[in-house]
Amino acid sequence: MKPIKVGIIGGTGYTGVELLRLLVVHPHVELTLITSRSEAGRPVADLFPSLRGFTDLAFTAPDEGAFRECDIVFSATPNGIAMTHARQLLESGVRLIDLAADFRIKDVAVWEQWYGMAHACPELVADAVYGLPELNREAVKQAHIVANPGCYPTATTLGFLPLVTSGLVDVADLVADTKSGVTGAGRGASVANLYSEVADSFKAYAVAGHRHHPEITQNLSLVLNAPVGLTFVPHLTPMLRGIHATLYSNLLDSNTSLESVHQLFEQQYENEPFVDVLPLGAHPDTRSVKASNMCRIALHKAGGSGKLVVLSVIDNLTKGAAGQAVQNMNIMCGLDEATALRSAPVLP
Amino acid sequence: MKPIKVGIIGGTGYTGVELLRLLVVHPHVELTLITSRSEAGRPVADLFPSLRGFTDLAFTAPDEGAFRECDIVFSATPNGIAMTHARQLLESGVRLIDLAADFRIKDVAVWEQWYGMAHACPELVADAVYGLPELNREAVKQAHIVANPGCYPTATTLGFLPLVTSGLVDVADLVADTKSGVTGAGRGASVANLYSEVADSFKAYAVAGHRHHPEITQNLSLVLNAPVGLTFVPHLTPMLRGIHATLYSNLLDSNTSLESVHQLFEQQYENEPFVDVLPLGAHPDTRSVKASNMCRIALHKAGGSGKLVVLSVIDNLTKGAAGQAVQNMNIMCGLDEATALRSAPVLP
Amino acid sequence: MKPIKVGIIGGTGYTGVELLRLLVVHPHVELTLITSRSEAGRPVADLFPSLRGFTDLAFTAPDEGAFRECDIVFSATPNGIAMTHARQLLESGVRLIDLAADFRIKDVAVWEQWYGMAHACPELVADAVYGLPELNREAVKQAHIVANPGCYPTATTLGFLPLVTSGLVDVADLVADTKSGVTGAGRGASVANLYSEVADSFKAYAVAGHRHHPEITQNLSLVLNAPVGLTFVPHLTPMLRGIHATLYSNLLDSNTSLESVHQLFEQQYENEPFVDVLPLGAHPDTRSVKASNMCRIALHKAGGSGKLVVLSVIDNLTKGAAGQAVQNMNIMCGLDEATALRSAPVLP
Amino acid sequence: MKPIKVGIIGGTGYTGVELLRLLVVHPHVELTLITSRSEAGRPVADLFPSLRGFTDLAFTAPDEGAFRECDIVFSATPNGIAMTHARQLLESGVRLIDLAADFRIKDVAVWEQWYGMAHACPELVADAVYGLPELNREAVKQAHIVANPGCYPTATTLGFLPLVTSGLVDVADLVADTKSGVTGAGRGASVANLYSEVADSFKAYAVAGHRHHPEITQNLSLVLNAPVGLTFVPHLTPMLRGIHATLYSNLLDSNTSLESVHQLFEQQYENEPFVDVLPLGAHPDTRSVKASNMCRIALHKAGGSGKLVVLSVIDNLTKGAAGQAVQNMNIMCGLDEATALRSAPVLP
Repeated sequence: MKPIKVGIIGGTGYTGVELLRLLVVHPHVELTLITSRSEAGRPVADLFPSLRGFTDLAFTAPDEGAFRECDIVFSATPNGIAMTHARQLLESGVRLIDLAADFRIKDVAVWEQWYGMAHACPELVADAVYGLPELNREAVKQAHIVANPGCYPTATTLGFLPLVTSGLVDVADLVADTKSGVTGAGRGASVANLYSEVADSFKAYAVAGHRHHPEITQNLSLVLNAPVGLTFVPHLTPMLRGIHATLYSNLLDSNTSLESVHQLFEQQYENEPFVDVLPLGAHPDTRSVKASNMCRIALHKAGGSGKLVVLSVIDNLTKGAAGQAVQNMNIMCGLDEATALRSAPVLP
Repeated sequence: MKPIKVGIIGGTGYTGVELLRLLVVHPHVELTLITSRSEAGRPVADLFPSLRGFTDLAFTAPDEGAFRECDIVFSATPNGIAMTHARQLLESGVRLIDLAADFRIKDVAVWEQWYGMAHACPELVADAVYGLPELNREAVKQAHIVANPGCYPTATTLGFLPLVTSGLVDVADLVADTKSGVTGAGRGASVANLYSEVADSFKAYAVAGHRHHPEITQNLSLVLNAPVGLTFVPHLTPMLRGIHATLYSNLLDSNTSLESVHQLFEQQYENEPFVDVLPLGAHPDTRSVKASNMCRIALHKAGGSGKLVVLSVIDNLTKGAAGQAVQNMNIMCGLDEATALRSAPVLP
Repeated sequence: MKPIKVGIIGGTGYTGVELLRLLVVHPHVELTLITSRSEAGRPVADLFPSLRGFTDLAFTAPDEGAFRECDIVFSATPNGIAMTHARQLLESGVRLIDLAADFRIKDVAVWEQWYGMAHACPELVADAVYGLPELNREAVKQAHIVANPGCYPTATTLGFLPLVTSGLVDVADLVADTKSGVTGAGRGASVANLYSEVADSFKAYAVAGHRHHPEITQNLSLVLNAPVGLTFVPHLTPMLRGIHATLYSNLLDSNTSLESVHQLFEQQYENEPFVDVLPLGAHPDTRSVKASNMCRIALHKAGGSGKLVVLSVIDNLTKGAAGQAVQNMNIMCGLDEATALRSAPVLP
Repeated sequence: MKPIKVGIIGGTGYTGVELLRLLVVHPHVELTLITSRSEAGRPVADLFPSLRGFTDLAFTAPDEGAFRECDIVFSATPNGIAMTHARQLLESGVRLIDLAADFRIKDVAVWEQWYGMAHACPELVADAVYGLPELNREAVKQAHIVANPGCYPTATTLGFLPLVTSGLVDVADLVADTKSGVTGAGRGASVANLYSEVADSFKAYAVAGHRHHPEITQNLSLVLNAPVGLTFVPHLTPMLRGIHATLYSNLLDSNTSLESVHQLFEQQYENEPFVDVLPLGAHPDTRSVKASNMCRIALHKAGGSGKLVVLSVIDNLTKGAAGQAVQNMNIMCGLDEATALRSAPVLP
């Protein structure tokens, strides 16, 4: 087949280097362009020596025109950048996959409140497809703009998805206690994310409100076609990669067997290449998905209370960002969805 | 004052070396004896070079008679050992502080079920005092046997304590999502706790049931004088020391202000030397209590749901084990409770 | 082409799971058999959930006959096991790649002294090929037994190799100060390698003598055809994967330019797919080769002394063990040497 | 005795918080003033919650006059700040302990070259005392300015000190391969020191030249009264605290016994409260001195070469910075040198 011409906006952060790691060995991708204001002129493999021998590309200064020749453009920038490029890319017939949040929230007012800025192209939000293939595979195929999901929303949505429409649990009282590795905090210079600040320590943050809360509730409410009640508490854990979501819900009928819930999950994800429902009794560790696009899910009834507990783990940089973006690109381009995403997790 | 003659049963594990770290600089303690079957004859400072210059003691083979001269004996062994020594120690007039679980659960049948063995002295359990000073200070003063609390129960109980009797929350639906550093898993040779198994990874464990569940419910139920409903899920996080408990409960009246709950906590812990209620908005990290006997607590209403979230952090080896044991000893011996526990946390 | 039938002896350790990670996606390998005494009957993906979906194989009890159908057998066991299987495998026409040390040292007496046991088949040692492709590529092609190099010897030999025959440095005074991640210590249950023993700490070990010393001196002496003098000090560093070798030597002529040494290295490794000589000024970090088969090398003159310093980094489980073993298999089977080894390093 | 009035310039970095940790429990210190341009007005315990309950002090804007009432002022700022305060402090009769490098190098031209700025008070450099008590205890007693040693220089100098004047080794060819925890890189916002950049990885840096090289050679040359030849290579290791120096030298007479060298070290450090010469055969890990002011030293002859290897470990924030500064203050004020420095290392 004709190679897919791919451009990247940004790409100096961790989702950027992960995207490059996946794309440089993708058999159908021709990486044509990568922009960065701060690193313009610098070879990519100079900034990320791990990529030496895999690409000769250098960062170039942002220039929208240059993307005109691309089939797909990934935006791996901070929030608020992709939306300033979207209109022109679309007009050039280029399809955009935004790894940031610009097109994730359908209610623009809600988006503007959480992200603290005016949206640059609110008229494009409705047509953007939320790129969780397990939810929106068909729509992704035709999408012009894919809003690649956030890391917490990916792990949490996949863990709650079979439940919300099952009628088995009280959707008004869902709790997501989530833990993230530090790469989730990005590659910007900051005291808060120094090794010496976060190593050998653990903390919650943003308990009173986090941007991923409206994204998750939007996902679950859309599926249910009714509002859900969600408590969402994120934590920072001293590891590089990984999201562990511990998800609590109350079974409406305490006699519901764990086996039946397990069956429900297995059916839901039967044909999904990147969701693995574990046997009963399992406790997935985040390293079991390290550097892979897999989401692993386990189910328990909590001792004492009988509350239903779903454990859902992903690699925040892969299934939680760049891997899912490549999965979306594969779908958009009619490729096998798992192309370039088939390597086994790196353990340990 | 006359020095307190102290003996230690066991002491080759992490709670043991932490106990030694605190006791070797305690101004009123004379460390007289430390036993270990496996390390008999070996100087303590040879096993733990961090203690070179602090003690000349060597491990000796277990010999109950030798403890006769002690005022206080700490048992820092695995579960099931202290109970085999208790009767003879009591008869010799020695007071016992057990850092393991032998005397924590009042219902012996429940204990035997969770710990998988017959209790060696069930008749002594009733008189043993559960050594959480914030709950039982007066009783500790006179105790002959102190059951030093578990690490998860310490962080969780202190976090829920002011709430359970407040009438503000639904005590039938409490959730404790707890995270522990790896020292909590002990110093025994095991594949599961190898660096290469737990570093750079995160997991839940024992979701279907954990020994600390009955201990926590016992604490809260005793305070409330009624049963509570608790979901308890422990996790292993790649750090050495620290417990982070994220505690969820539903406010019965959603108009209850966070300020009023904060005031309740401040009142409860006003005179406690080792419980620090943080200002509103704070997110304590576990390193803020590293190597110290402090418990720090913060309060939030979760964004979106309004659920009450209590964050409670301790060092599992200090307030969660050896530090609390020394605190109990100080109380038992009529000393200032904070003696030898006044150093500032080590940060970072 | 006809698939290569591959068997694995052992495979429950870290080199085993790394070997599996690489082989399960190797396009020309048919994994037919994996043995383990302790895990017989257990599915591989049950022990290592990271491999779920990649293999249905279960461990079987050791049975040499079963390997008869294999083309290649990897031995990923502790030292001393492969040699007990070698004779029978050879007689069955099976080619053996031993990831342990049984066939690395040509002088059997030296081997027996360092490994503390009698060699089971000393007569096979001479014909075994030391599987460092950069040294012995031609011999590997025809080898019946490949002694896969140790991790320290790989990083150290590749770093010193161009120098020893160059006449530029004093080969009587080479110093290798080497640092290893913890997976190098294996997956056996041991107190010494617990997370709580090695995290957040650093130490040297075996300064008075380490098994890899004779292996490295054998490599360098063979190349030079004369003895070399080597000081070798290994250290344990709190990370999962990676070897960093800091190699010191004295330039015989202090006027020798760093540029000329750099050129020497570039020439030596010009056509090597897995040795990357970095530009002058670089300091490779071990993560730049994480989960990859690459060795990166940088050169410096030390400030003040002008001593030549070579920095050489590998992933101990990949180029230092399983990756190199697959590289050797590829060479033995006439495949492109990089087959299944082309993925980019995982960063971070 | 009258309390020592102490002021701190800076104190928002890791040496600052370590200094505070030690001083808040010092029985003879009255902490009167701490300045910070960036944090002026903020309570110290708000920036560092670990200090809640230990001090009510708030940072104030820099104002030299305010230090007039102090007996001792610690400068815990970046390089180049203390020298701008020194003249006025001295004129006010205040004694200065600089934890940065402003007064460490006697040759001002060399200092200016390495630190890239003009010295603000070159005339004061000669009288400043290099505050390594093991070298300069008597001079420290009377010092008006103490140049507190760097972390690498402390570990390296203490490890080489007994050797350089012993006549046993070739002082023209000393090698110091040193490894530091990440707190040594400071608390400034930087990409290079993010958790996600340095965790699970290891690297050398500044091989071609590091500021601590001239400091170490100055120390050793002064003792020897002749030049020494030193190769110094620093590395960054993924841990919070700790320096591990691996020190190589050639015995002039290969028959020199390790026992005799050991005796030499024991004699040198016989009366030192903070240098611990370990028994032969030991390999100190950095955690054995965590959060303590101790330096532990072990000696080996390297297998194969017979080269003398000294292992020297300290906590870079304590003996390598704040602890040594307090030790110096104690000496300057006629106190027992170990006051407030007697706690046992925190292990693990």
